[in-house]
Amino acid sequence: MLRQLLPRCAPRAAAAFVAPRRAPLGLFQAARQYSITPEAASEAKIQDIDPSQLVLQKTTTPKPLKKSSDLVFGRNFTDHMLTIEWNQTTGWQKPHIVPYQNLSLDPATCVFHYAFECFEGMKAYKDKAGQVRLFRPDKNMARFNKSSARIALPNFNSNAMIELIAKFTKLESRFIPEERGYSLYLRPTMIGTQKTLGVGAPGSALLFVIASPVGPYYPTGFKAISLEATNYAVRAWPGGVGDKKLGANYAPCIVPQREAVSRGYQQNLWLFGEEEFVTEVGTMNFFVAIRNKETGQKELITAPLDGTILEGVTRDSVLSLARERLAPEGWNIVERKYTMQEMDEAANEGRLIEAFGAGTAAIVSPVRSIGWKGKEVHCGLKDHEESGEIATKMKAWMEARQYGDDEHEWSYVC
Amino acid sequence: MLRQLLPRCAPRAAAAFVAPRRAPLGLFQAARQYSITPEAASEAKIQDIDPSQLVLQKTTTPKPLKKSSDLVFGRNFTDHMLTIEWNQTTGWQKPHIVPYQNLSLDPATCVFHYAFECFEGMKAYKDKAGQVRLFRPDKNMARFNKSSARIALPNFNSNAMIELIAKFTKLESRFIPEERGYSLYLRPTMIGTQKTLGVGAPGSALLFVIASPVGPYYPTGFKAISLEATNYAVRAWPGGVGDKKLGANYAPCIVPQREAVSRGYQQNLWLFGEEEFVTEVGTMNFFVAIRNKETGQKELITAPLDGTILEGVTRDSVLSLARERLAPEGWNIVERKYTMQEMDEAANEGRLIEAFGAGTAAIVSPVRSIGWKGKEVHCGLKDHEESGEIATKMKAWMEARQYGDDEHEWSYVC
Repeated sequence: MLRQLLPRCAPRAAAAFVAPRRAPLGLFQAARQYSITPEAASEAKIQDIDPSQLVLQKTTTPKPLKKSSDLVFGRNFTDHMLTIEWNQTTGWQKPHIVPYQNLSLDPATCVFHYAFECFEGMKAYKDKAGQVRLFRPDKNMARFNKSSARIALPNFNSNAMIELIAKFTKLESRFIPEERGYSLYLRPTMIGTQKTLGVGAPGSALLFVIASPVGPYYPTGFKAISLEATNYAVRAWPGGVGDKKLGANYAPCIVPQREAVSRGYQQNLWLFGEEEFVTEVGTMNFFVAIRNKETGQKELITAPLDGTILEGVTRDSVLSLARERLAPEGWNIVERKYTMQEMDEAANEGRLIEAFGAGTAAIVSPVRSIGWKGKEVHCGLKDHEESGEIATKMKAWMEARQYGDDEHEWSYVC
Repeated sequence: MLRQLLPRCAPRAAAAFVAPRRAPLGLFQAARQYSITPEAASEAKIQDIDPSQLVLQKTTTPKPLKKSSDLVFGRNFTDHMLTIEWNQTTGWQKPHIVPYQNLSLDPATCVFHYAFECFEGMKAYKDKAGQVRLFRPDKNMARFNKSSARIALPNFNSNAMIELIAKFTKLESRFIPEERGYSLYLRPTMIGTQKTLGVGAPGSALLFVIASPVGPYYPTGFKAISLEATNYAVRAWPGGVGDKKLGANYAPCIVPQREAVSRGYQQNLWLFGEEEFVTEVGTMNFFVAIRNKETGQKELITAPLDGTILEGVTRDSVLSLARERLAPEGWNIVERKYTMQEMDEAANEGRLIEAFGAGTAAIVSPVRSIGWKGKEVHCGLKDHEESGEIATKMKAWMEARQYGDDEHEWSYVC
């Protein structure tokens, strides 16, 4: 039995959920209950996401644009949000684009207690012709579905969702700055909304997408970072969920990250096991370029997708570009386990060429050194250098495809 | 800089957060913004929780009581909730008891994205004299503080929080049924409320307590359950957070639990490592009584607190009672690693006396058998038995202290 939601079009409930964030004092709106009772039976035909049913409710109070130079990652959001509710009885409901606003949730809602939540991080870019482009949204949606399935949240048709995100992004395109390096960060999120403390699969969920205009990660050019290798805490484990983009993988990472920062590092590098395998950086995958000890061949190495590594879209793109453009120059592109010891040895023998993180936020993030067992493992940069050759090339190659200069199937024109 | 919250006592914002769940249609209230901007500096003196500042706002629409027999775990809640906001600038704010109602949160709030959430599960009991009693609340608050610290959420003074929970529980005492086996389940929860997508320590948080009247786990006496041993997925690992009561530990457990249920089991039993160490049941710690192969001595065994086991209050109470009352009878009470293989061998040799789960919900939950590697490991119960001797005794001993029949320091009279 579905709990009756306040009708969306009722005179005083028009704007859904709750009072908008920036509502003038005195303007109050109805709480929209984002959950169903657990009795909901799954008898009826389950509906997938249907973009043709999109309901658009535009804001009447558009936000002023911020100066591009004032943009801070994930702090300011556009005028609207995309929302789609799901319940186990009828499936995905009509998609809505509504003014950006608070969610109103019962305190017993399962997202607050059992971390029924997963998300994606992706960006929209404005090309020279003013067109809005997404970058490999199919990869994000595929991962989103894998993440949600792993925590008993619903799946959906990827193409339908990409179509909706494209419509939403076009609607918000005035928020995407024209300058190179700027973009609109998109945050598709799915949360369980069932309101019972019983531990079980949520009978209802909410998928929402919010968008935040962001500037370049390195506004004045690359700035190499230093990492602290973390061996006292473990991010992920075989048989665990470290390869999924779940909220559950993030909160436990903050204390080790803060520890690293307290000792003067920018982020931490997660090691695994007694062997101290290198896995990934705080919020990025990790690549290292090493000259092979036996053959002398240059190798670009990253950890394999063994279930403990986030399946990064940037990681995949870097590997793909490397195979296309570095392999012909004699590079060996390798996904394999490698250890901190191996990196240290290469550094000591002058074979460590460079290292960088790879993720949506920074694209690539050059690494100067890694603190490990009381010493600094230097990653090949000279003192005056902020990036190695491969990182520099990768960023240019990636951006050319993201901004549509290098027309490619990875770029999705909205 | 703190975002200005809507003043609590403003004419139309009186009931905090949002429209109450059961508000008559047409009555709308202000959204209370549960987060601050991340710039908040931590310069001022940080305030701890202060029970003397409690602000009580009673409901004007008390709920009718449900028939005791109709109570379902965690589905119906009392009239009020206890809330305390925290921010990094000024610390813990005035505690409030307000009518049970929805939370209004910005969709960028960090609890939705990075699982900044932890909780406790505890119960309040009504004794023969009508007094309300908590059971070992100091243990719950100590664990709550350990959980919150592990995910960069704030700590608080345990005694102050117990005092507030006691006041809240007394206020709601009409919801605690008089019958033995019934109680009021209390759910203290802490969530990060900062609204930015940057991954970092939350600058603001909300601690809330909600309460749900519950019936006995086994209304008609014990019913032994069957478990499926899970070796294809891993709940916790060394260096991880499996010993903390974080939301992050729960969502990833649902799919394996559902798998077990799909094959006819009630819950799953988490094994760890190639050795297949027995760790814990889906939502309980696990005990097994075995006759020692060499000495013939009876042993009550549970996994040690090595960081991969939830530090259960019931687990601790069972161990304590066993040391007090079983050890003098010749039992050896042991916290050590043990394997599924070892249990299977004991079962085959007739040395497995009984097994049971231990947790707040059921106190003890007798186990009939465990599905493992395609066979059933029988845990000592005869076909007509639903509980072993130790489980039966433990439940009685525990309840005697919970309901105050056996006056003991574990019982906290509100």
